[in-house]
Amino acid sequence: MKIAKRMDLLGSETAFAVSAEAATLAATGRKIFPFHLGDINLSTPKSVIDAANKAIDEGKTGYCPAPGIPELRKALAKDVGDARGIKYDMDNVSVQPGGKPSIGKYIAAMMEKGDSVLYPNPGYPIYESQIEFYKGVAIPYGYINTPEGLKLDFNAIINGIQKGAKHIFYNNYNNPTGASSSDEEIERLANLVIDNNMFLISDDAYFDTLYDGKPKSIASIPGMYERTLTMYTFSKKFAMTGWRLGAAIGPKDIIEQINRLNVNMESCTTHFVQFAGVAGLTAPKEETQEILDTLKVRRDCLVDILNGIDGIETHVPEAGFYVFPKITNLLKNTKFASVEEFRKSVLNDTGISFCGRHHFGRPLDNESDYYIRLAFSGINKDDLEEGMALFKEWINNNTK
Amino acid sequence: MKIAKRMDLLGSETAFAVSAEAATLAATGRKIFPFHLGDINLSTPKSVIDAANKAIDEGKTGYCPAPGIPELRKALAKDVGDARGIKYDMDNVSVQPGGKPSIGKYIAAMMEKGDSVLYPNPGYPIYESQIEFYKGVAIPYGYINTPEGLKLDFNAIINGIQKGAKHIFYNNYNNPTGASSSDEEIERLANLVIDNNMFLISDDAYFDTLYDGKPKSIASIPGMYERTLTMYTFSKKFAMTGWRLGAAIGPKDIIEQINRLNVNMESCTTHFVQFAGVAGLTAPKEETQEILDTLKVRRDCLVDILNGIDGIETHVPEAGFYVFPKITNLLKNTKFASVEEFRKSVLNDTGISFCGRHHFGRPLDNESDYYIRLAFSGINKDDLEEGMALFKEWINNNTK
Repeated sequence: MKIAKRMDLLGSETAFAVSAEAATLAATGRKIFPFHLGDINLSTPKSVIDAANKAIDEGKTGYCPAPGIPELRKALAKDVGDARGIKYDMDNVSVQPGGKPSIGKYIAAMMEKGDSVLYPNPGYPIYESQIEFYKGVAIPYGYINTPEGLKLDFNAIINGIQKGAKHIFYNNYNNPTGASSSDEEIERLANLVIDNNMFLISDDAYFDTLYDGKPKSIASIPGMYERTLTMYTFSKKFAMTGWRLGAAIGPKDIIEQINRLNVNMESCTTHFVQFAGVAGLTAPKEETQEILDTLKVRRDCLVDILNGIDGIETHVPEAGFYVFPKITNLLKNTKFASVEEFRKSVLNDTGISFCGRHHFGRPLDNESDYYIRLAFSGINKDDLEEGMALFKEWINNNTK
Repeated sequence: MKIAKRMDLLGSETAFAVSAEAATLAATGRKIFPFHLGDINLSTPKSVIDAANKAIDEGKTGYCPAPGIPELRKALAKDVGDARGIKYDMDNVSVQPGGKPSIGKYIAAMMEKGDSVLYPNPGYPIYESQIEFYKGVAIPYGYINTPEGLKLDFNAIINGIQKGAKHIFYNNYNNPTGASSSDEEIERLANLVIDNNMFLISDDAYFDTLYDGKPKSIASIPGMYERTLTMYTFSKKFAMTGWRLGAAIGPKDIIEQINRLNVNMESCTTHFVQFAGVAGLTAPKEETQEILDTLKVRRDCLVDILNGIDGIETHVPEAGFYVFPKITNLLKNTKFASVEEFRKSVLNDTGISFCGRHHFGRPLDNESDYYIRLAFSGINKDDLEEGMALFKEWINNNTK
């Protein structure tokens, strides 16, 4: 059988290939320092696990409604609405098996073939993949490295709008860069969206992982409520990546269309897992705070070590699991012509596994710097320190 | 925002609307007799539940590979291969969050826009929906009612092939008709597929629910191994409908493409649920036999009662959860002009909830008989008998 032509348009998460390389190396008995994937090596909170077990015992093992159980839709409407100072009800919520499914479902439901769609690059590679799979025109926008951190490249966004972009993916507390927007940046973006009659998909995967202060969502800006679809996930805050639980939250007419896709694609999200989600949202905050506290210690440790290495400069990410160091000066002092060569060599020599900027979208025209991404969610502090000591040593041995 | 035009092509499972009607009625305090949905009111086997709990305890709560955990892929390759007398390995298996996702993923991966695809009608409505969503031409084939049961309408199949059909969905142990193919029928269909260089998607949702004897798969016929994608689900045999666990099993080049869609659509299927699946496949057969024994008692009871009602004729389904009575003569003796009017009236008057043939595809040109579908998987024997007594009484009061 011949593969359908549309599959030529489909992208991937090439970061998974790095996982596979690391796994292959691990299988030979080598110790791996896993800085490559945004998975979490901490336990899901006990209250969540207990609720899943209780739901199974109570027979929540049959089908449930395609948009999700009312209990979870209501709990999400309240939690997500309260955190953003806006009001949702259950009809604004479509439960999904993870955060990711909302990307393709929004695109399928709302993007006309040929529509232009802005998306962050570096960014989560599935935005681009799904835009192109459904025959939209994917227009990347990047970030500008400033002393205050990485900032949205508004020139690129405005260029995209001038080319007719109707939709924009926005991932505040960005993966992979760790960039977070100031209030001014959020307002400027909101004004562009409103003034140009666009729609915004706010990937809030890391919204609830802000280490200090209160996170801010663009959906809170007046005029944005009806122009924002929020991609919510339980994966990060609740250390539930493998449970596959998330939601699309936004205007009811869009949610209705996404619900139709649920019926077609997977019938419903795992029934008892949804009760576990309700428990997570309503449980005391200590359990999730503990996860954040642990991650913050790792973050600070990793940033300190990296900024102590010659040729590496990195910002402190305010949220999320990722450090995105600029290694331009380091790379110049090695024999390696690309980040990919450098990355592979480090992995093979030391077992330290991380991703490069190139795993998060095709490089843009105006890029002259080199970056890598290190995740600190899947590695304990001790291993993190041991890995970084090896990294330093390797750099000493492999630079001019 | 305007909805994308492609959403006009998307169908649904209208049986869900019947569930919603029944739920609305139940909310008023009325007793409902749920014959409408293929859900199961029996517990998931204890060994499966225990394995899920153990996997959660062991931290199988993070991401796993997009095609599924190797343990489950291997167990499925063995179980599904052994039951069909063919040999698969783990690369032939892509784990899915349910049986349903394989439909759209096959179509997306392998059906070129404009391809003609044969599908059973009456049948599971998502085949037609996904074919049309991805801009294929959906060509229905029906069943012919014979004294030995419902038989594939080969004239319709051959007509479809003459129109250029390249793919065919085949659901032996069919939902909703309960039809099962004889060996001769399977061979005839296989020969057509082979002779016309077609590909077949075998929806084996009910393969493991055959009440007597050994089920047969078309994938076992020489020449069909490389032309068959098997849709496997844990939902029915293991009473796991709400767990969302299934798989696509077939030629490696197709499985690779489906895996690419997994990466894009949901990252992976719930991690610890996959270990529950491994336990189900390797557990002693007593637990699943108990489920089948219970269902068989209900089936025999329901068929006996229905065939004792004037104007109703039904076959005994050899597998699955559905009885598909012909009610042509009954309907003629009522004031109702359609099965839908009849169905709604029965529901509102008695609380007995079932589907009509029209919930399983657009009626075909040559149809002159009327059918309803009663599921016996979600109703205990006592309630089944109580419901059928009310049904008889209602018929007595509502026929000439």
